[in-house]
Amino acid sequence: MAGKGSKDPEESKDIGITAKKEEDYGEWFSQIITKAELVEYTDVSGCYVYRPNSFEIWEKVRDFMDYEFRKRGVRNGYFPLFIPEKLLMKEQEHVEGFTPEVAWVTHTGSSKLAERLAVRPTSEIIMYDSYGKWIRSWRDLPLKINQWSNVVRWEFKNPVPFIRSREFLWQEGHNVFASKEEVEKDVLEMLDVYELTYKEMYSVPVIKGYKTDSEKFAGGDYTTTCEVFLPNGKAAQGCTSHNLGQNFAKALDITFLDKDEKKKHVWQDSWGFSTRTIGIMIGMHSDNKGLVLPPKVATVQAVIVPILFDKTKEQVLAKCDELKRGLSDCFSVILDDREEYTPGWKFNDWEMKGVPLRIEVGPKDIEKGQAVTVRRDTGDKEFVKLDNLKDHVQLTLEKIQEELYDNALRMRQENTIDAASMQDLMKAIKDKQLVRTNWCGSEECEALIKDKTNGAKIICIPFDEKPNGKCVHCGKDSKHEVYVAKSY
Amino acid sequence: MAGKGSKDPEESKDIGITAKKEEDYGEWFSQIITKAELVEYTDVSGCYVYRPNSFEIWEKVRDFMDYEFRKRGVRNGYFPLFIPEKLLMKEQEHVEGFTPEVAWVTHTGSSKLAERLAVRPTSEIIMYDSYGKWIRSWRDLPLKINQWSNVVRWEFKNPVPFIRSREFLWQEGHNVFASKEEVEKDVLEMLDVYELTYKEMYSVPVIKGYKTDSEKFAGGDYTTTCEVFLPNGKAAQGCTSHNLGQNFAKALDITFLDKDEKKKHVWQDSWGFSTRTIGIMIGMHSDNKGLVLPPKVATVQAVIVPILFDKTKEQVLAKCDELKRGLSDCFSVILDDREEYTPGWKFNDWEMKGVPLRIEVGPKDIEKGQAVTVRRDTGDKEFVKLDNLKDHVQLTLEKIQEELYDNALRMRQENTIDAASMQDLMKAIKDKQLVRTNWCGSEECEALIKDKTNGAKIICIPFDEKPNGKCVHCGKDSKHEVYVAKSY
Repeated sequence: MAGKGSKDPEESKDIGITAKKEEDYGEWFSQIITKAELVEYTDVSGCYVYRPNSFEIWEKVRDFMDYEFRKRGVRNGYFPLFIPEKLLMKEQEHVEGFTPEVAWVTHTGSSKLAERLAVRPTSEIIMYDSYGKWIRSWRDLPLKINQWSNVVRWEFKNPVPFIRSREFLWQEGHNVFASKEEVEKDVLEMLDVYELTYKEMYSVPVIKGYKTDSEKFAGGDYTTTCEVFLPNGKAAQGCTSHNLGQNFAKALDITFLDKDEKKKHVWQDSWGFSTRTIGIMIGMHSDNKGLVLPPKVATVQAVIVPILFDKTKEQVLAKCDELKRGLSDCFSVILDDREEYTPGWKFNDWEMKGVPLRIEVGPKDIEKGQAVTVRRDTGDKEFVKLDNLKDHVQLTLEKIQEELYDNALRMRQENTIDAASMQDLMKAIKDKQLVRTNWCGSEECEALIKDKTNGAKIICIPFDEKPNGKCVHCGKDSKHEVYVAKSY
Repeated sequence: MAGKGSKDPEESKDIGITAKKEEDYGEWFSQIITKAELVEYTDVSGCYVYRPNSFEIWEKVRDFMDYEFRKRGVRNGYFPLFIPEKLLMKEQEHVEGFTPEVAWVTHTGSSKLAERLAVRPTSEIIMYDSYGKWIRSWRDLPLKINQWSNVVRWEFKNPVPFIRSREFLWQEGHNVFASKEEVEKDVLEMLDVYELTYKEMYSVPVIKGYKTDSEKFAGGDYTTTCEVFLPNGKAAQGCTSHNLGQNFAKALDITFLDKDEKKKHVWQDSWGFSTRTIGIMIGMHSDNKGLVLPPKVATVQAVIVPILFDKTKEQVLAKCDELKRGLSDCFSVILDDREEYTPGWKFNDWEMKGVPLRIEVGPKDIEKGQAVTVRRDTGDKEFVKLDNLKDHVQLTLEKIQEELYDNALRMRQENTIDAASMQDLMKAIKDKQLVRTNWCGSEECEALIKDKTNGAKIICIPFDEKPNGKCVHCGKDSKHEVYVAKSY
């Protein structure tokens, strides 16, 4: 499980992260994801290996979300990877949004295909082609299907593992309703599941809002989003839930016979949450010693490190093993009994990998009937009576999960600036802050805000907006309160 | 969740299967998988939609296997979909085995790629390219990684949903060891996990054995297999576990520094289990009324069908709801309280979908404090006191799971023929039986057996072989006992 060299004790000096998060975030991020053994680069730019240390996070998130989906009547299925070119072309806006990034299969074996096949960049078209065959009457609605899959978008922006990759993993949910009211409600309900997942699993607070028309999903009526503000001063679109209206229903002629015996087009939404979210979590919580994982996504929640001396070795190992067995009913705990490494080396190793809690046990601790626990996130050290260890671990893991969230929220609040003028806005963006301001609603002002800030965008119109005053750019009456930030 | 038309009560006569399993297996299979809403066809030949009714089977199998994998130290990861052409070419036999079926990405957007990308037909090469970066010393071994993924093999044989599709879902495990002994042991251990999964989840008995050299995995030393004999007289390769020896290690130069300070090539295996297994299970147990599901893979294990009359409707529904809540702690139970369908229509509907147990409750049953249960597999009807219902359901589901296995095993045993001559062998194959016979080990005899039987193959050399007597084809001394059958 170790990266190149990281297991040779003599090389332990090299395994730390040599860049500082606050000075060179990009380099820091890149070191953390390789040294914590989360990803591996490949010969194809933008395509990465998800090593077990990161994939297991994804599995925990999947299980959490599947439970929430099922509660809402969503069932999982799987639709083909390949979309015939003609089919993909059926919804015009959708085509224009996605075809510049599509990977095309043109040959199989040594034969040329009669029709090119798109590797799915998203699955609206291929799924709805089947939906059209299944839906006949109001009795078939709502239809709610989700799939966990890989998708490919050959973006030409600089790829960053997790955050922007050409192949990524995600879930994409596709619900169908008989009425506009139902789909509007559902779009928000699925976004709530995303907010919950970010909070409960990743300890990451989000801002929920609408995307502007220029940033919405190609082929949809409107897009809702969870936006995350990161400690490097950048926002990241965290996931989206789109109201597709009847656009695809009309393009693919998906109709149902309603209770009033009239044939009507269905109403649809789609909503996706990808492995980008792992990158957001890493960027939010981790530090210059390595990864920091919220306990609920950690494969190993606590590691016991025995302090071994020749004379007391047997006794200490036996005690540690007993403790491990006692804790394992409730938590995922490992005992690091490797003898070729010093305790100090192990501390660094598990800190790099983000294990939330370390439990140290030496011969003197055993004499005193205690252990030493050290929190990964704060470094806080406590002496704990062995009788209380289980309760202590339970409480501490809960505390870590909550405090990571609270700290991230505080960080965002402290870095949010209300800007009434372009001067204030430009200064705040330069200072890597998140700007809350007013906007007239014109695409022109949106574009000029971007130009004048070297690329900061209106990341969303928050659901809780209170438009007031004048557009920060043109001075006309404000139509929306918006957040502006540099963004991935 | 219903297929076209199946929800209109007036069309209920059409929803049954019109072909008989024993007369036209192909047509029967094709009807069952669409009418039980397991798959949908698409415009791309050989690529199918896994509808929730089949995908949920796959999820249950995945969870079962993941548990077994984890117990054995295997961790899940995810490797890229695309393999650069040059990389794929590194292991010669492997290339020759797979390139005729590879789907090639040549363009992205409107640009031609400098190097073609293969859509993975299997992931040895792309995974081992990373393994080479991670493995340095004996401390890094064993390395055990599995991935759940989609793969594409553009076969030109007639595609059959589940059984032979151009895109399919599978798990592929890839373990690495320091010694030949370890890898040989592991190949068999992973095959044991497969046998267990077939038995415990699918109630399907397998024959474990070796593939002949002409049928082994391209690039491996030898292939072990679980073969399944189906009621239509055909065998299906159920899954495989390959000993790759040092072939890939040498092609990709994957070495480790052993305890003796010598640099050595690693030893590897790979093992895969795909959605084909679902097709095998369907073919094994299902009947002319529709799907038959072993309880452990059934999304719905029992369905309560209330018998409703105007006067007693409220009372019966209340009782059914109470029963459902009581059973739901232990089983997956639904109450079919749809009022637009008759009980008879519902019986057919749930029989088509393979729900293992039906529970009927009418007003007279309630008076007598009883319910009527009907087994999907046998049709056996029982009157059960409501006080005993939970225990009865528990026992009956266990019984179904076991008896499906026992019946499948008996079916195979009754259809297994020992053949000492080609005449016997050819007759048995014509009679759709499974032949156990003797083989000299020559590729020539293997090919001629195939020719003379119109395509029956040596499906495996069973692990428990007892070679005796003479080769069924040439009469020379037998080297192996083998199974011969028509095969998918």
